[in-house]
Amino acid sequence: MTAVYYQGEGSFTLGDCAVQAPEAGEVRLDVAYCGICGTDLHIAHGAMDKRVPTPQVIGHEMSGVVAELGAGVDGFRVGEPVVVRPLDTRGETPADKGFSHISAGLKFIGIDAPGAFQRSWTVPAFTLHHLPDGVDLRLAALVEPLAVACHDVRRAELAAGETAVVIGAGPIGLLVALVARAEGARVLVSEVNPARVQFAADLGFETLDPSAVDAAERIAEVVFEVSGAPAAALSMTQMASVRGRIVVVAIYPEAQPVRLFDLFWKELQLRGARVYEPADYARAIELVAAGTLPLDKLISRVEPLERLPSVFEELAKGTSDIKVIVDCRA
Amino acid sequence: MTAVYYQGEGSFTLGDCAVQAPEAGEVRLDVAYCGICGTDLHIAHGAMDKRVPTPQVIGHEMSGVVAELGAGVDGFRVGEPVVVRPLDTRGETPADKGFSHISAGLKFIGIDAPGAFQRSWTVPAFTLHHLPDGVDLRLAALVEPLAVACHDVRRAELAAGETAVVIGAGPIGLLVALVARAEGARVLVSEVNPARVQFAADLGFETLDPSAVDAAERIAEVVFEVSGAPAAALSMTQMASVRGRIVVVAIYPEAQPVRLFDLFWKELQLRGARVYEPADYARAIELVAAGTLPLDKLISRVEPLERLPSVFEELAKGTSDIKVIVDCRA
Repeated sequence: MTAVYYQGEGSFTLGDCAVQAPEAGEVRLDVAYCGICGTDLHIAHGAMDKRVPTPQVIGHEMSGVVAELGAGVDGFRVGEPVVVRPLDTRGETPADKGFSHISAGLKFIGIDAPGAFQRSWTVPAFTLHHLPDGVDLRLAALVEPLAVACHDVRRAELAAGETAVVIGAGPIGLLVALVARAEGARVLVSEVNPARVQFAADLGFETLDPSAVDAAERIAEVVFEVSGAPAAALSMTQMASVRGRIVVVAIYPEAQPVRLFDLFWKELQLRGARVYEPADYARAIELVAAGTLPLDKLISRVEPLERLPSVFEELAKGTSDIKVIVDCRA
Repeated sequence: MTAVYYQGEGSFTLGDCAVQAPEAGEVRLDVAYCGICGTDLHIAHGAMDKRVPTPQVIGHEMSGVVAELGAGVDGFRVGEPVVVRPLDTRGETPADKGFSHISAGLKFIGIDAPGAFQRSWTVPAFTLHHLPDGVDLRLAALVEPLAVACHDVRRAELAAGETAVVIGAGPIGLLVALVARAEGARVLVSEVNPARVQFAADLGFETLDPSAVDAAERIAEVVFEVSGAPAAALSMTQMASVRGRIVVVAIYPEAQPVRLFDLFWKELQLRGARVYEPADYARAIELVAAGTLPLDKLISRVEPLERLPSVFEELAKGTSDIKVIVDCRA
């Protein structure tokens, strides 16, 4: 059992990994760990069946080791630890204005193309980032979501000494809070789930009751909306102080009521943030390597690959896990 | 009849101007012209009765001449043409972070304090901007709304060669379009009213049918939402291209559905813009003095002060006027 295949309609099967020799410009990796992302859960719930071809190996929050180099690949050596930035940007056109990470033809590897919940994985070499030798590959599986957080913080142009509110203390919200604190900001975490409030407090964050919006009015130069809750879309503009920046990280499938009056009155900026750019990966790797963030506390458990279908079922029922990591070498 | 007084509940009276000798730091002006703003119409409809003390002289889009200087006023001379930036920022506190023009304690002169629909007007000297000698005072009455447009364009960080869509071809929308064109942008005007579509076309703008949103998808680096129409709040994010900037100029009293998904997907920025800063007045005065914009075409008619109450009634019924200017010397 060296690969897990999504078969559509929320169903997974265990099988053998189809080891694929790297073509020119590709690299074959031995996957070490791969974290479970909220997007993987959406797929597992059948919510993205229109997009995901089946059978499909999903998974994109990985760490691994270079196993084999295709022709013409320079700058990497077999045995070296790496992570993959899972964006296939080869469909980029001039209309994308150089923003390849959000280009209209972007393919997300692990959704639109095979992913990392398997023992061996072959990817384009341009997706790879070096890891420092000796890095903990378990923590390195957090580079991808950490790069999301680094991107969000960079989009906010957050400065040391500013106050930031992070709405929603799921895995991405907590990572945003940690990165924002590492940048020197005072960080408050707004969350409704008591267990997550406690978790954020245990990480040393001030917490905030989002229902007490009056008390939260104009409290922060920067607001990160990570919850996806309609109530947060309404209150995020109230929390921002004059000329504040609000970064919308959450995915709202439907149009949401937003207080445009606040935007006007306080001259706020509302900024979208999606995935990451190479600089965000570099920063995330730097943070993992430096060991300054308590990333270990975010890993709730490590499960063997063959348990992945069962873990998806458990997570669908609701657990207190923050981040579940899958050991793909098992 | 040298002043018009708002009495509340949509009613105005004609009366004598209470000429007020300037105190220290103040200047008394002879008002020349004062334009009618959308805000004045709101007041005239009784919609701002909770805010406006009565009886009140309203009006703030003015030009005039210095008549008398209070003690300690330097840098101005009697007989000099000036305009007033009608923001009383003396309530500014450190919480406003230096953004005095949108400070929480801001008083708007002409709403919260007496305005310019009168022959003689006494204001703080810090609100004054010099006009070049020989300027057309009729056109100079457009400096205030033109400064709004300059502020909006500056908030957009619009660059020469970019494409901008202006949604809503009322007076502010048209001024935004003119300023954006003067900055070297390609400007399209989106409007539903056929007469205004024609007016924009006569000014040389490409026009756009806002109901054909599909055709307008990703067409502009910058979108100015000036219409205040809920349909525009929904379509503004569709019109913006990747990393586009959307400036929300319109005042939406209620929360509006906004496609936050577009914000995320294209990493858009939504920016509020309110009134103006001194630099915007400087730019507006420069544009009026240079005579490069066809501002004269925006002035639909000039009416004597005593006709102001009747003009408000006419405008309430709906006219084809773009901008009505009141001659306060008559």
